[in-house]
Amino acid sequence: MIQSLFREDIKDFIPYEVGEQNYKVRLDANESFIGFSEELKNKICLAVRNIDFNRYPDPDSKKLCSFYSDYCGVSKEYMMAGNGSDELIQIIVNAFLNKDDKIAVINPDFTMYKVYTEVRGGKVITLSSNENFNLDVDSIIEKVNNKKPKILILSNPNNPTGAVIPKKDILKIVEKCKCIVVIDEAYVDFYGKTVIDQISNYENLIVLRTCSKALGSAALRLGFLITNKLLLKEIKKVKPPFNVNSVSQTIGEVILKNKKYIKECINRIIQERDYLYEVLSKIDGLKVYPTEANFVLFESENAEEINRYLLEKGIKIRKFKDGRLKNCLRITAGTREENRVVIKEIEERG
Amino acid sequence: MIQSLFREDIKDFIPYEVGEQNYKVRLDANESFIGFSEELKNKICLAVRNIDFNRYPDPDSKKLCSFYSDYCGVSKEYMMAGNGSDELIQIIVNAFLNKDDKIAVINPDFTMYKVYTEVRGGKVITLSSNENFNLDVDSIIEKVNNKKPKILILSNPNNPTGAVIPKKDILKIVEKCKCIVVIDEAYVDFYGKTVIDQISNYENLIVLRTCSKALGSAALRLGFLITNKLLLKEIKKVKPPFNVNSVSQTIGEVILKNKKYIKECINRIIQERDYLYEVLSKIDGLKVYPTEANFVLFESENAEEINRYLLEKGIKIRKFKDGRLKNCLRITAGTREENRVVIKEIEERG
Repeated sequence: MIQSLFREDIKDFIPYEVGEQNYKVRLDANESFIGFSEELKNKICLAVRNIDFNRYPDPDSKKLCSFYSDYCGVSKEYMMAGNGSDELIQIIVNAFLNKDDKIAVINPDFTMYKVYTEVRGGKVITLSSNENFNLDVDSIIEKVNNKKPKILILSNPNNPTGAVIPKKDILKIVEKCKCIVVIDEAYVDFYGKTVIDQISNYENLIVLRTCSKALGSAALRLGFLITNKLLLKEIKKVKPPFNVNSVSQTIGEVILKNKKYIKECINRIIQERDYLYEVLSKIDGLKVYPTEANFVLFESENAEEINRYLLEKGIKIRKFKDGRLKNCLRITAGTREENRVVIKEIEERG
Repeated sequence: MIQSLFREDIKDFIPYEVGEQNYKVRLDANESFIGFSEELKNKICLAVRNIDFNRYPDPDSKKLCSFYSDYCGVSKEYMMAGNGSDELIQIIVNAFLNKDDKIAVINPDFTMYKVYTEVRGGKVITLSSNENFNLDVDSIIEKVNNKKPKILILSNPNNPTGAVIPKKDILKIVEKCKCIVVIDEAYVDFYGKTVIDQISNYENLIVLRTCSKALGSAALRLGFLITNKLLLKEIKKVKPPFNVNSVSQTIGEVILKNKKYIKECINRIIQERDYLYEVLSKIDGLKVYPTEANFVLFESENAEEINRYLLEKGIKIRKFKDGRLKNCLRITAGTREENRVVIKEIEERG
């Protein structure tokens, strides 16, 4: 019986399955709604032609890291590229956790922190944000130092709530918690306040970034890990040698050169998020949460029904299953047209 | 002290470092020497333009898998794509090994099997091939069933020796070993004899394939895992949802359509490997091992010196450090011109 060789502790894991993808409007994955311009595609084609396809990629994604360094204002010596934040989370977990070592996460937050920890065989400590999805920083620090996880990981702005922790509070957490603190800044470009500039001031701070949101490049699976040199050296011990392929590296370089264009895209997305927030706030029966990301979370007693109705209309937004977010729906900011469509349908059903 | 949070068991790991890359001739990484034609690059550009860069990739690489299915003759239902064999090895290890669980590897073989097992916290059992790098199959089976690893993993053709295990012996191993058997067929296109057609006949067989060698696409980091449905379901539990980016998927699809072109490339590479083997065999003082891969391994008392001499001439081949391969050098088959250059220099120094 081959099953006797399976891991008992992941017996109940369910492989990720993608359902029907033929939606008219897709606002469920916090992607950018802005496709690449023809001009950008021309530049990409030129660059792709020059790739030596038969050769392995640069294992350190050096050129890509210097472009990201120029984009984010932090030296490339503190930087490592990966296949999206997903791979970087796995690499962090592999670098520091042994079986049964603990990691602290916030509820709610990005679910993959928990998944990758469990794949690793680590233990997850869940700390909750308060009623409005804000963090009681002192209580978090106390619990962390009490439970002694090796890592605390959280997203700021938070996914899926859009809530933020002020910079001084983040730095207080980093300073007071006796563990490695990972701040996932996947949505930071829509917020504007980063702790990346503090990277060399702390021995326990790691920041994660991604090209999947503000940079409109989810297809590339590109993420960056930024930390001090000592932690980076430790983390690189477990990095697969040629993790980021040459094509993603090359296209990432092309995109990161266009800083002005990126800034314009971010502004357009913020505008649509604010529009979505304002109009949703006016609908009776919805509790809409403040957001600094590219999506809006709201609560409604009819969440289940609204979601079902939207699906019937070919509109995919994000529905949550678990306790705290049971009545919540998350809508990614789309084009004005898409936002109008989703709002109109919610108004009809909400 | 942040170091108290580091993993004791990987204390001695050294991050992968790439040295000087400005070699005139690079025959160290078993890459294909054939770059993409202009025609193929045109097709790639057209396909890349149509990617929705702002959207996440297909998590199951479905289209890519059907093209690989067509290439290798096995149904796509038995298939999963990954970021090179490297990611697939990690996924297998994550799916089945808990801390201190055992994995059996052959010495010599591809070193990353050991590395990823140790990153996982697993224990490596090393079984040796005989003097001429052949396997005593019965002894391997006995040792495996005695030591009880969860997984036996080996490459066929073997990297770095080029030796092969006959199909009937591979199937005997799969049949008799009471563990999961992973056959890494990275170099199988140069050999021609696969066990992939047997995939649904065994409950414990996994085959790995790559686009980095015969398909000349090392830059893309594309690999495939082929196994029965039960094992595949278990493995998919730990697969990162969007592991393969859209660009590698798309370009992989374009390449796999050109079956005739791929076949021609393979023939050219085999021709150069045979040329390299023949000419090296005539040089005094070299023991050249038979090979079915795209490289040739040879032994010489002057291995160290030959390697140093070649480096001075701007030629990079593969030198090994550890006991068994101490006096061995491995040369990837290059263009006829490159092969001539490397042989000429070896003759002068050998």
